[in-house]
Amino acid sequence: MVNTAVILAAGLGSRLKERTTHQPKGFVEIDGLAIVERSIQQLLASGITQIMIGTGYLSEFYEQLSEKYPAITCIHNKDYRDSGSMYTLYQMKDVLTSDFLLLESDLLYDPTGLKCLLDDTAEDMILASGTTHSNDEVYIEYDHNHFLVNMSKQLAELKSADAELVGICKISIDTYKRMCQWSADVFAVHLKWDYEQALVAVSQHKPLLVYKLERYVWCEIDTEEHLIRAQNEIYPKLQQKPNDTLPIRRHILLNPGPATTTDTVKWAQVVPDICPRETEFGELMKWTAEQLTSLVAPINQYTTVLFGGSGTAAVEAVLSSVIGEGKLLIISNGAYGERMAEIVEAYGIDYEVFSSSPILPLVLDEIEQVLQRNQNVFTHVAVVHHETTSGLLNDIDRLGHICARYNVDLIVDAMSSYGAIPIDMKQSQISFLISSSNKNIQGMAGIGFVIANREKLQALQHHTPKNYYLNLYKQYAYFEKTGQMRFTPPVQTFYALKQAIIETQREGVEQRYARYTRSWETLIKGLDQLELEYLVPLEHHSKIITTIQEPAIAGYDFDHMHDYLYEYGITIYPGKIGQLSSFRIANIGDINHQDITYFLEKLKGYLDTIR
Amino acid sequence: MVNTAVILAAGLGSRLKERTTHQPKGFVEIDGLAIVERSIQQLLASGITQIMIGTGYLSEFYEQLSEKYPAITCIHNKDYRDSGSMYTLYQMKDVLTSDFLLLESDLLYDPTGLKCLLDDTAEDMILASGTTHSNDEVYIEYDHNHFLVNMSKQLAELKSADAELVGICKISIDTYKRMCQWSADVFAVHLKWDYEQALVAVSQHKPLLVYKLERYVWCEIDTEEHLIRAQNEIYPKLQQKPNDTLPIRRHILLNPGPATTTDTVKWAQVVPDICPRETEFGELMKWTAEQLTSLVAPINQYTTVLFGGSGTAAVEAVLSSVIGEGKLLIISNGAYGERMAEIVEAYGIDYEVFSSSPILPLVLDEIEQVLQRNQNVFTHVAVVHHETTSGLLNDIDRLGHICARYNVDLIVDAMSSYGAIPIDMKQSQISFLISSSNKNIQGMAGIGFVIANREKLQALQHHTPKNYYLNLYKQYAYFEKTGQMRFTPPVQTFYALKQAIIETQREGVEQRYARYTRSWETLIKGLDQLELEYLVPLEHHSKIITTIQEPAIAGYDFDHMHDYLYEYGITIYPGKIGQLSSFRIANIGDINHQDITYFLEKLKGYLDTIR
Repeated sequence: MVNTAVILAAGLGSRLKERTTHQPKGFVEIDGLAIVERSIQQLLASGITQIMIGTGYLSEFYEQLSEKYPAITCIHNKDYRDSGSMYTLYQMKDVLTSDFLLLESDLLYDPTGLKCLLDDTAEDMILASGTTHSNDEVYIEYDHNHFLVNMSKQLAELKSADAELVGICKISIDTYKRMCQWSADVFAVHLKWDYEQALVAVSQHKPLLVYKLERYVWCEIDTEEHLIRAQNEIYPKLQQKPNDTLPIRRHILLNPGPATTTDTVKWAQVVPDICPRETEFGELMKWTAEQLTSLVAPINQYTTVLFGGSGTAAVEAVLSSVIGEGKLLIISNGAYGERMAEIVEAYGIDYEVFSSSPILPLVLDEIEQVLQRNQNVFTHVAVVHHETTSGLLNDIDRLGHICARYNVDLIVDAMSSYGAIPIDMKQSQISFLISSSNKNIQGMAGIGFVIANREKLQALQHHTPKNYYLNLYKQYAYFEKTGQMRFTPPVQTFYALKQAIIETQREGVEQRYARYTRSWETLIKGLDQLELEYLVPLEHHSKIITTIQEPAIAGYDFDHMHDYLYEYGITIYPGKIGQLSSFRIANIGDINHQDITYFLEKLKGYLDTIR
Repeated sequence: MVNTAVILAAGLGSRLKERTTHQPKGFVEIDGLAIVERSIQQLLASGITQIMIGTGYLSEFYEQLSEKYPAITCIHNKDYRDSGSMYTLYQMKDVLTSDFLLLESDLLYDPTGLKCLLDDTAEDMILASGTTHSNDEVYIEYDHNHFLVNMSKQLAELKSADAELVGICKISIDTYKRMCQWSADVFAVHLKWDYEQALVAVSQHKPLLVYKLERYVWCEIDTEEHLIRAQNEIYPKLQQKPNDTLPIRRHILLNPGPATTTDTVKWAQVVPDICPRETEFGELMKWTAEQLTSLVAPINQYTTVLFGGSGTAAVEAVLSSVIGEGKLLIISNGAYGERMAEIVEAYGIDYEVFSSSPILPLVLDEIEQVLQRNQNVFTHVAVVHHETTSGLLNDIDRLGHICARYNVDLIVDAMSSYGAIPIDMKQSQISFLISSSNKNIQGMAGIGFVIANREKLQALQHHTPKNYYLNLYKQYAYFEKTGQMRFTPPVQTFYALKQAIIETQREGVEQRYARYTRSWETLIKGLDQLELEYLVPLEHHSKIITTIQEPAIAGYDFDHMHDYLYEYGITIYPGKIGQLSSFRIANIGDINHQDITYFLEKLKGYLDTIR
């Protein structure tokens, strides 16, 4: 993350005549604010925390400004009268230690330009615009793939001139060192070199990206003519709010995932193409794995194994890989428990099912008795934390402690609880926990993951593989060794997941659950008013998914209700509990209690049509 | 696809006084062009092919216009003096048979608005802007989820008024019928109803989406004051080209997939959230499956089975599902042949490997002899069409005919050939063909798919499942039955794939291969000049991937070369052929011979540094 900016502000600004007799040109005002101060405010608003100003002519003005803005440090170029901008920049060689934004002091510009440079992964970027016909332009020649070839005010020196230097660059510390190195040599001749010349010199040996925004709104103010243009043309344009990006239609998804996502997560999918075998992408996956782990377990003892596929793929990866010659006890109180039985059945793995009511809590003592009666028989217990079919929450903490007593590994399918309900794998003694990218973490579908105790993973290395793509140990070991997934991962889905994780961390899992809870409370209140009933007793609700009894009204039809609501941008979901007539409302994803109120209003609308 | 537009143009335009004494108000000119004619041109440019104009006052002007634009049909409202816009629209009730755009005749507007309505899947949309303070505004009240509540010129009648009716709507034929039904009743009172009133009436029973573009540039021209605003403010804004969407940095990926994609494929991932169990999404998957099939086989006899996962996942789905109690002969001349052996090994499936040189073509006669010697032993043969490790192309057509002679099913891994090299499964007698979303089809990674003969798929129903997520028959049967994937699909990747398929169809597989071939020719010529050599003899090149011998120059280092090129936005890939020192260049994806020239130039740059 770049957090430093350098402003080059040593020049005399003599072309602005009397306007710069008593002040540096950065202090020329537009709409009552010095242009350099507006620039500083824009930098701070963009996340820059340290601003170094290379001063010269009338440096006291900047010294004074630094009292108002503590982020500012002034570095004086005492030879400012006889030197160029590169010499001013060179004065910072002992204090500049990280990548930075480099700006001229006389710019009026759209802050979008800062964001483009700061958000991009490229280390060196020269911001450019299309031609402005503003006089005194510096034109940029760049190659087929947008790297700098040359810069000049003289068109005759360039092969192409459809881009103009704005005067805002992102400079890596390596590039800065090269600029200084080159300068140290040429300063022997004279000191009047511009930083642009240093950049061109460096670009002979190192690619420097020219990032061109065709209709970027900006100007520099070097002359009286510039100032008039700035006041009459550029400033009014900057005052207009920027064009909207087209709004993405918002749907209220009340199905139990994929959930409603934020627009920022949606946009995060749009990134430059990258080969997922590159280190850069490996680092993204490593970061993702660590963050996913750290939500529920300490990262030194636990790790996350990532798969391209749905949550079920990740469940299968665990069940097919970890039981080995052991025996699995599946605790089932819904369709997802049954699914686990179907998976191990396909692999011929030894198992038994402990069936429990789909709407009442587990009787943990009974489970303990089963384990007690079968000491040294069951090696693993698998349970669904939050049974998506009913909205029933199973007590994995108590279960984990029971399993530990009988030396049995606990596997938790936390598909629709992870990211919403706080979990502590270590405290609850859970060996393997499974979830996916598209539920409460609020990312896009396509990634299933397993969070596991590292020792338990290591112990799998001598198991005979039962499959290939979903082999948990191989996926783990390969990633540990190479930083890559064994097979092509869903690249863009990872970028969305990164953004989703950042937003989850920003909200916090507990606060997310508090938001969900408020939505659920609104829902329950509304259902009462509509005289609808839920299947699971209130005290056992997960507050994430609510299973509602279908109303016994002649004319009621789930599909009609669904379609009625769907037209209003609301998606509901059928029930999945045996013979019980129900439908489900999941209050997960980027929705809140107001969306639930809206849903209830429309649900009432539907019920009114049939009542 | 909406291809009809209706323009309401019957009114007197009396508030424009002498300007409309001799012509309808649509004929008021801005910059020398009648506003209605500019609108017609914009509609035609947006793909509208049929324009119905509801005429009244001075209808002969529109009749004349229809001679210039054959797309126009005029429908006359003879009672135009005593009726409102709804009555004009009502006159079309016998000729309007499909969804349409509805426009007023006196609009000057940004054509982006048309695109927004036409591209959206919502059937009914009312285009709105933020407030314009233009006088004579129709304000829109809408609900929490952006559906119409009311419209009025009287602020007092509305609870909110932050949106204005533009006068451009998308109307479904169902909504139009409801509007006409409502009108038929109220016409008994008088005829002076506006279409806005009909829309509000319909919205009581049917949600009509208000699509608001906050800073949409438009105006209507009803008064002299409006005309001045149109000329001085709106038209100049429309003349400015619209703001860029921020450019996405372009990388030249020369790794063998995921490939460089177009920006349009990247943007296609940004869609409203949808639950993938919805019919709408099912239809997208069905369309995708059919189009993927139709590139290589007739869709009545073949179908595509889709999986969330990488290409390898789809290979495993086939190998683990189709062999059953049979025996597989794997023809291997590279890492992907070996991978097939690893997969069947994990499942304990009976198999043998026919190994062939990684750089020389298969000797098909030898394979035929193996099948002949083992009649009734091998039930399946598996081969990689284009061995990604070497760039060697295997002759699947001849192999298919050999397999057919011995009654053996041919399985083809076409991962990096599908979409580039024409394939005819039926002609070549291929039973199962596998590829993925992120190679030559030029979509995003995350979907693996199997194109299969339907009879062969049906025959799998009695096989004992060996796994769960990747069970080919279950995935096929479930999709046939429900139109859904068994497990959550990677939703956004499907939207990208749809766009990629459209672009593949537009280019054509043969033309895509011609483009690739030109890139390959440029590559080969450049390699010759750099005195580099390739491993596979020229006549057996796939023209998609080229394996290059690493140069025997002291100082050469693949990682250095990779990093040098990576800085210029070019990604190359290491070799994967046993002990042979090589690297690979794949000229696939949205790149062309100019990108290859650029790569060669930079490759020379690197070699110069070490030579």
